Amino acid sequence: MTGRYLEEFAPGQKFASGQLRVDRERIKSFAAEFDPQPFHLDEEAARGSVFKGLAASGWHIAAMTMRLLVESELKPVGGIVGVGFDEFRWPNPARPDDALHLDIEVLEVRPSKSRPDQGVIKVRTTTVNQNGESVQVSVGNLIVRRRLASTA
Amino acid sequence: MTGRYLEEFAPGQKFASGQLRVDRERIKSFAAEFDPQPFHLDEEAARGSVFKGLAASGWHIAAMTMRLLVESELKPVGGIVGVGFDEFRWPNPARPDDALHLDIEVLEVRPSKSRPDQGVIKVRTTTVNQNGESVQVSVGNLIVRRRLASTA
Repeated sequence: MTGRYLEEFAPGQKFASGQLRVDRERIKSFAAEFDPQPFHLDEEAARGSVFKGLAASGWHIAAMTMRLLVESELKPVGGIVGVGFDEFRWPNPARPDDALHLDIEVLEVRPSKSRPDQGVIKVRTTTVNQNGESVQVSVGNLIVRRRLASTA
Repeated sequence: MTGRYLEEFAPGQKFASGQLRVDRERIKSFAAEFDPQPFHLDEEAARGSVFKGLAASGWHIAAMTMRLLVESELKPVGGIVGVGFDEFRWPNPARPDDALHLDIEVLEVRPSKSRPDQGVIKVRTTTVNQNGESVQVSVGNLIVRRRLASTA
């Protein structure tokens, strides 16, 4: 199995991601299934809303962010398994044709007290558009296996 | 426009939702697009993972939760517009054929200091399966319009 064990993560590490484009029709179809509100479904209704134009559902942004994170250079052994977030917000809307990428930074690395075979890394993931504006900021805690345990 | 203004929300209010069933094939297709990791894509690989069986992506749970929330009795005027979360976690996995519903509770109601026409309500949304287990817990802040401003 490839990827980084807990011992290979350290605070201050930064990782890059690829890029995903926000598709206008996918904004609408995602919203139709999961977030059926006028400002995510219809251009005309969206203009008169708080978003002042068609905007992706926050959950669509979150899902696209996950796709970029899974394919990023972060690569913990065993995959990206989140236990929860310390912070999670959408500072700006994501629009049709936005090109999104991630800035990923490791903030903390902590071995588990109760589980000697694993630990937790705290990671800030910022989803950024082509103008450098943040459309999602999260600080999440991921479970990562320890190398020690796997060679014991 | 129908729905509740800020003045019609109060701490302690509880709201119900409908129910959504977690579809096995949708777990896999959602994951293929947004969270392509073996434990969300393949039964066999999932059995050997930390999830010990096929589990929905957390973002799929979040998206299903949003669908239930939009169609719930909460109904703020202007729609459900979240600015961020104080808490967000997945205590248990969601499995194929789970039937999910929400327990929704208003925790706080605050008029905005800078915007007399709106305020924020803090809402705890717990996504619960057919066995009463929580698969997602969030405490989020939603923007809601004030009635005062709209009649001024």
